[in-house]
Formats: sequence, structure tokens, C-alpha cells
Amino acid sequence: MSLWFRDGEPVRDVSIDDRAFQYGDGLFETVALRDRHARLWDYHMDRLEGGCGRLGIAMPDRDSLRVSLNEAVAASGEDTAYATAKIIVSSGISRRGYGRARPVDAHTFVGIFAAKPMTAESYRDGVETMLCNTRLALYSVSAGLKTLNRLEQVLARCECEQEGTFEGFTLDADDRLICGTMSNVFIVANNCIVTPTLDRCGVEGVMRRHTIETLRRSDLLVDIRDVGLDEFQQSDEVFLTNSQFGILPVRRCGEKVWQSHTVTREVMARMADNEIAECAL
Amino acid sequence: MSLWFRDGEPVRDVSIDDRAFQYGDGLFETVALRDRHARLWDYHMDRLEGGCGRLGIAMPDRDSLRVSLNEAVAASGEDTAYATAKIIVSSGISRRGYGRARPVDAHTFVGIFAAKPMTAESYRDGVETMLCNTRLALYSVSAGLKTLNRLEQVLARCECEQEGTFEGFTLDADDRLICGTMSNVFIVANNCIVTPTLDRCGVEGVMRRHTIETLRRSDLLVDIRDVGLDEFQQSDEVFLTNSQFGILPVRRCGEKVWQSHTVTREVMARMADNEIAECAL
Repeated sequence: MSLWFRDGEPVRDVSIDDRAFQYGDGLFETVALRDRHARLWDYHMDRLEGGCGRLGIAMPDRDSLRVSLNEAVAASGEDTAYATAKIIVSSGISRRGYGRARPVDAHTFVGIFAAKPMTAESYRDGVETMLCNTRLALYSVSAGLKTLNRLEQVLARCECEQEGTFEGFTLDADDRLICGTMSNVFIVANNCIVTPTLDRCGVEGVMRRHTIETLRRSDLLVDIRDVGLDEFQQSDEVFLTNSQFGILPVRRCGEKVWQSHTVTREVMARMADNEIAECAL
Repeated sequence: MSLWFRDGEPVRDVSIDDRAFQYGDGLFETVALRDRHARLWDYHMDRLEGGCGRLGIAMPDRDSLRVSLNEAVAASGEDTAYATAKIIVSSGISRRGYGRARPVDAHTFVGIFAAKPMTAESYRDGVETMLCNTRLALYSVSAGLKTLNRLEQVLARCECEQEGTFEGFTLDADDRLICGTMSNVFIVANNCIVTPTLDRCGVEGVMRRHTIETLRRSDLLVDIRDVGLDEFQQSDEVFLTNSQFGILPVRRCGEKVWQSHTVTREVMARMADNEIAECAL
């Protein structure tokens, strides 16, 4: 059974003239399905809508997208008590050349994938990471967005897989920490929680937003600002956020080891109380 | 009849799991077919090989690629006395996630398209251009390469089409002139021909290389260095290079008009003598 759907119909193939194939002209979202519920759905839709606006692609109707997702879940046959949905919005078909046909007839695809929770050990003891050699380009027109132009993450991810680490951090050209290949990063320094600015490059994850908003309603301080490599390496704690796993402590990055996860555990407790069940230790 | 081919067979579709569709994980070349001959073939293959090396994708065998191209030309039914071939190399299929399956099984696609020469007026009087608002990100891992991550060019191209100009120039974040959406740019200043450095962003076109190499064997001076926006706007002449049209003078960019194309004509004469027949006025 196909795991990808378009307009409710299973699809295995796309047109070779699809602009996502030719130019990466589109966006995507990776949504956690938990007990058949699309977690943080509104945040995913907000980001997708922002991305469509900046790229000049018509935003699919949110309700129709929800219907497509539900149809795909029903048709997939996957156990969607714990699964992942990937939504791709491409700018559609055009014959040749960078310019789009007008009006842009966006194509939406929904994929449903089985998933497995991370181990309890990962949530308790943290994960191993590395610093990638791949750097993120500065002042990207698509900074913050989850576009289909993902070569930087592909190259950084290949580095992680070669080293066998769970995640790899990417810096920008000015030695600022930006994010992981598939996660956002938070550090704890001087009892303040800090996550990097993402207005020059990087992807603004929905779990990053959920974490920031959850913390801002709590007694824990969180700041969004530039984080240099030195500050990262001298930080007291580091944790990752991602729409699928929620929050994971980082135990090691290269030679650097973090043994304390005290503040991270406090953050996880608040997230566990706010929809992210995986964070309950 | 399909105009795209893979392994000699016509194709209309690609797998939705193709990494070119999912991440833009691949490269392409746009080759001019002139009198059934693939013009500047070795330069296209050099760039593709360089790109494959930097992205970690196995370079397809050059001879096999030539055979695939010839088969596609024969099967396309297009009049390939004057046509365009597009070669796409994707990193192949993988299930989900940025990391590639190992070993990478690259997929190669060849498309054949009818083309029309630019008008004699364009070569004689020059073309209209604009400065795009879209900027190119700095210090890109794929600077110089023609990857399938082309959102910057897509957005810049949409600006040109909205304004109705033939080409649009993109700057980097530091107000340096980099290239056109589908061409490279040369300026003439103080009797020296200059083209921008492309080691931070931009695409190194094969016609740019052919122009530089042709000029370096002539009495005309050519320099590769940073070009600021001011220098561009105060230059004496501007011309474009592209694998399909060869060289075109620029007559206007926004408010700025260039009436002289004297040096450009000398360059065109040398190119006309060196394989680029379109440049003969």
C-alpha cells in the first residue's frame, strides 16, 4: 500500500516537471501523530502559511489539509497511535525555466510513516552529538523556513551518520551556533535558557516555538539571541527540540561532555504537562 | 512523446521518494545542442564532476552520459539542430530523513527541449534587466555549483517576470554584484573586463568559463574579483553569458542605460570564432 497521498488518492510518483523535483520549489512539514492526533497542528500550519507567503505560493486551505491528513491516516494502514506525517507543498508544474506559471497551482502531498519513540535512556541520559563541518549560509532568503532546499542539512546529516552520532550541530560562517540537522538547540548558561536567533539561517522548529511559549508561561527564563561557539562549549547544559521527539538532553558534543541536565529536566517536566508526553521521565 | 529519459527509456514521472523531490539533493546541467552537437560538453562534465565531488554523489560515467544524451536526442523527435538538453543527477531514493542510503545510487535523467535563438536585435542592441530584491546567501556550501536547490533563482526570476525584463541581477548581502538569475555577468570598467568572484554564492556558468578562457588567449584583459553595486552602476558596458545564448549586451538595468557595447562586440567576435556562432553579428 502506498504511503503517500494526493487529494486522497495513493501516489508513488510525481511528475518529473514538478518544480519540487526541478528546483526544490516548495515547503514541507513533519507532523507528529500521537493517538491519531496531529500534535501542534496550528503551529505547523502557521509556519507553512508564513513560508507560502514568503515564497509566493498559495497556502492550501487549513481545513482541507486537515481532511487530507485524516484521509491519508485512514488509508495508510499504519498504526497511527505513534507515527509521523510529512506534508509537502510544491509550487506545481511548469515546463522549463525558474519562473513559475501564473497562477501558481500548488500541489500538496501527504505521507504517513510508522515511527518509534526514542528510548527512555535517551530522555534520561541524553544523546551524543558532533559539530558538523558543513556551515549554513548567511542571510538566506528562506531563513527560518522549512523549504525543500535542504542540501545543507543533507550534507551535515551525512557527517553525523559517518560518525555515528545522533545529531550534528551546524554553525554559520561567523562561528555562531544555529541548529542541529533535524532539531533546534537550547543552551543553559548562568541559569538562563538561550536559543539561537534564526533570522539569518536555520529552521524555526515548531517544538522550539512550543518550548519558548511554554517557558514564557513558567518561572524559567528563556532568551532568543546569538550564541557563539565558545558560549555553546562553555554552557552548563544543552538540549534539543524536535516535533517528533519533543526534548532530548545532550550528553556529549565531540570532546565536550555535559553531565548535568538539571534545568533541562525542569523544562521537560513543563513540556510533559503541555502535550509532549515523551518528556515525562 | 515524452521528452524526458532515464537509461534510454522515456519517463514522465519520478518516485516521490526521489531525494531531488524531497530535498533538492542533486545537480543539473543545461546543455546547448547545436547541429546535434552538445556544445561545451567537457565544461559541463567538469562542473558536474566537481559538484558530485563536493556533494558526495558518484559522478556518472562521462561516456555513458554522452550515450544517454545521444539516445535521448534520437528518441525525442525534437529538431535538435537548435535545442536544449537538461541533465539531472539526483542522489536517488531513500525512505525518509536527510541522510542518504549508502552507497548512493545516483539517478540520471535527460530532457530534450526545442529552443529558439534570441533575436538579432537582442545581440545587436542588448537586453533589458533589473536589480532583484532577492539576495543570494553568503558562504553557501554549494557556491559555484548548479544544484537542485534553486529557490533563490526562482524568487529572483519571479521578480523579472513581474517586471517583464529579460534578466535580473542578484546581489549578495554585502551589496556585491553576483550574477543574473540564469546568466553570469561581466562589466567593462577602465578598459578591463571584470566578472564577479563566485566563491561565496552564485553559479559558475560554463559560458562564463569559456569566455574567460577565450579572452585569456586574446589581447583583451579579464579579471575575476569582487564587484560592488556602485562599480556595476558606473561601469562602461555590461554583458551576460549563458550556455544557451552565448553573450548578450545589456542595454538597461533599472534607470541605468548603457549605450556603448564596443568592448562587448569585440568579445562577441572572439566568441563567434570559438564555437559560439550566435555571437556573430
